[in-house]
Amino acid sequence: MKSGLSFLVAARRCEIDELEQLARTSELVGTIGRLVHVLQRERGLSNVLLASQGRRFAAQRSAQIVECGRFERDARAGFDLLESEGRRAGSGTRLFSRIAWVLPGLDALPALRRRIGALETTPAEATAAFAKLIAGLLTVVFEAADGATDPEISRLLAAMFNFMQGKEFAGRERACGAAAFAAGHNDPQRQQQWLQLIAAQERCFHVFADFAGATMSQLWRECEPAAELAELEKLRRIACAAPAGVPLDPELSAVWFDCCSLRIDAMKAVEERLAADLRDLCRNKIRQARVEAESYEALLDRLAGEPDTNATAFFDEPGAVPAPQGDGPGLAPAAPTYGHQLERSILEMMQEQAQRLQAMSDELATVRTALNERKLVERAKGLLMAHRKLTEPEAHQMLRQTAMNQNRRVVDVAESVLSMADYLPIGS
Amino acid sequence: MKSGLSFLVAARRCEIDELEQLARTSELVGTIGRLVHVLQRERGLSNVLLASQGRRFAAQRSAQIVECGRFERDARAGFDLLESEGRRAGSGTRLFSRIAWVLPGLDALPALRRRIGALETTPAEATAAFAKLIAGLLTVVFEAADGATDPEISRLLAAMFNFMQGKEFAGRERACGAAAFAAGHNDPQRQQQWLQLIAAQERCFHVFADFAGATMSQLWRECEPAAELAELEKLRRIACAAPAGVPLDPELSAVWFDCCSLRIDAMKAVEERLAADLRDLCRNKIRQARVEAESYEALLDRLAGEPDTNATAFFDEPGAVPAPQGDGPGLAPAAPTYGHQLERSILEMMQEQAQRLQAMSDELATVRTALNERKLVERAKGLLMAHRKLTEPEAHQMLRQTAMNQNRRVVDVAESVLSMADYLPIGS
Repeated sequence: MKSGLSFLVAARRCEIDELEQLARTSELVGTIGRLVHVLQRERGLSNVLLASQGRRFAAQRSAQIVECGRFERDARAGFDLLESEGRRAGSGTRLFSRIAWVLPGLDALPALRRRIGALETTPAEATAAFAKLIAGLLTVVFEAADGATDPEISRLLAAMFNFMQGKEFAGRERACGAAAFAAGHNDPQRQQQWLQLIAAQERCFHVFADFAGATMSQLWRECEPAAELAELEKLRRIACAAPAGVPLDPELSAVWFDCCSLRIDAMKAVEERLAADLRDLCRNKIRQARVEAESYEALLDRLAGEPDTNATAFFDEPGAVPAPQGDGPGLAPAAPTYGHQLERSILEMMQEQAQRLQAMSDELATVRTALNERKLVERAKGLLMAHRKLTEPEAHQMLRQTAMNQNRRVVDVAESVLSMADYLPIGS
Repeated sequence: MKSGLSFLVAARRCEIDELEQLARTSELVGTIGRLVHVLQRERGLSNVLLASQGRRFAAQRSAQIVECGRFERDARAGFDLLESEGRRAGSGTRLFSRIAWVLPGLDALPALRRRIGALETTPAEATAAFAKLIAGLLTVVFEAADGATDPEISRLLAAMFNFMQGKEFAGRERACGAAAFAAGHNDPQRQQQWLQLIAAQERCFHVFADFAGATMSQLWRECEPAAELAELEKLRRIACAAPAGVPLDPELSAVWFDCCSLRIDAMKAVEERLAADLRDLCRNKIRQARVEAESYEALLDRLAGEPDTNATAFFDEPGAVPAPQGDGPGLAPAAPTYGHQLERSILEMMQEQAQRLQAMSDELATVRTALNERKLVERAKGLLMAHRKLTEPEAHQMLRQTAMNQNRRVVDVAESVLSMADYLPIGS
């Protein structure tokens, strides 16, 4: 029969297993970020190639495909490692299911590239294909954040997910703009899509700041290069404010691409910093948990020789040191001894642990709620866009307006929308 | 490099591991229920013994202690089994921490029994000691419900926890009443405590009905024996409505004890039924998950021989069967083949799995929210009772009234109370 203390050790060991699994997941998130980055660049180059009828960026694109291959191998190796190590830790159902979805996307990349190289697809279709694959990769990151059992790590992963999502909107903006400039003209549909991508980026970075805390948000503001931002805004204005049919200078496609790329590379630097912070956080937590587990184990070894048949402390009044009492032989408890004091201090350790776990659980619930509220709002918007043929900003505005009118939170309105999905008209 | 399908298999295998862990936890919950039941009876007998100055129930109590020893051994063996098997599954931190807290309570039982046998403690103190141990055991059940990763199992465990909690209040009522009758009189403090125990039972069975669904609630209503209930209400009235100082017939203590015990035994039957349902539910889920995992694995074996270099389906338009196209050698994708159809059906399997997991995750969030809202309300009540010297029903009424006045939900008021803990006066 095991003692209470040995279960305290077992609880700590479980926590260490979970933290090690989180450390592996966090490594994978970093690897995914790198793969997404090179795919985003390939998408931009592919778009210019397609929009320019094969005249621009052919060599850069070929080089980029080689680069992508390298990061794809890293990511696949990371998935495999997680599978072989993670099975033991046992909490991977949803994460593995997301990875399962992503792999056929990577498998289908060579065929997609052949069609792009043969100019057999449009910029819009190519963008959509890359965006689908990247969305799948980001879902793996979301799942990692949502499945994390440590609130601090979960919070940092949630910040990372939102930052990566914002960066992806920036990447799609680069591809969208590159195609417009390379084609030499813009159209109202693309202009509207472009403006949506700008708004979506801003929302993501706002959420990122909520999760990441002040220091990181500050870092991001400092990283975003001011000169390039001004240039970017100018090019945005030229392309988005121009009336339909007004020609755009195709030479600007390279300027636009480089300007966006500088900004996206700055985002990449922030992302790497987040990944490094995540790694440090996991390492520190594992080290600390190991030290405590070892101190419990040392105590357990020390107690192994001693009989504990006179355990009594559990029923002591809290805080009271029991007076020695009773001498009815065989009936009254043994007088409190050194062993009794030790027993009390073990009980205190247990209560501390229980309180710490309760605090962690409360904090984790807060992070998950925030994360899932965002997801609910996104799903409600998607539903409104599909059923009422709204654009993304229109759907967003509709939820906000309803919330204001009804004096409710946006997430509560989103929940109502989702629960009434069956009553919504289809595409009315 | 592993394929998407092999991660689909890995996800299923994880799910099976989790279900097997849940099956073990559910078994343990049943074992805990049995231990709690015999401890409750021992507490009742101990109370009569103490209140009657050792004249009543001495022999029954000795027999009951032997009975308790048997169930204690089962529970300890169950804890040990969970520890040796559960470490592999890795999600036991909080559960193990709760078990760690319970074991010193079991260790301290012999000393408590010696004091009771020597009439060195009061009925109130003995009740409080047993209640503390049983509360610790019930916390293990709560943690099992809260940590379950399957919503149906979590819901049934939550129903079980609330039922066990209600049964514990019934057990405390038995002990409280037994002491009053055996002592030959009641007092206002005990009367008030008694009424609180009745109200607390009713609340628990109400929550149980919410979680358990109609069939189970019906079963409980049918199990509660009507004749005994009438007798119980009569005895409650005699003891609780009597003015202080009016003597009670000590002979009624045995009548009361038997009447309560019949009702509690009926609860035990419902509890066993819940445990059996839980066992069946786990078994069925494991069987189903195994069948699916095996069908995925069979497909994986079949595909092992085939090259998948022409994967393309991921980027198909949803729902569209792609037309055969392109013959630019080496550039266009291979014409859709049997392999392509298979690839599409694997993608569909993945989407089904993702949708199923999303639905499960939503449902699980609902169950956990309901479970944790109850916990928040209990914690807020505890805080109000401590800081404002309120009884439990007064604290409950205060939360309800505030919620009605402010047009908020009780749980939101409870959350405000907890977040303002530092501002509350102590015992004012």
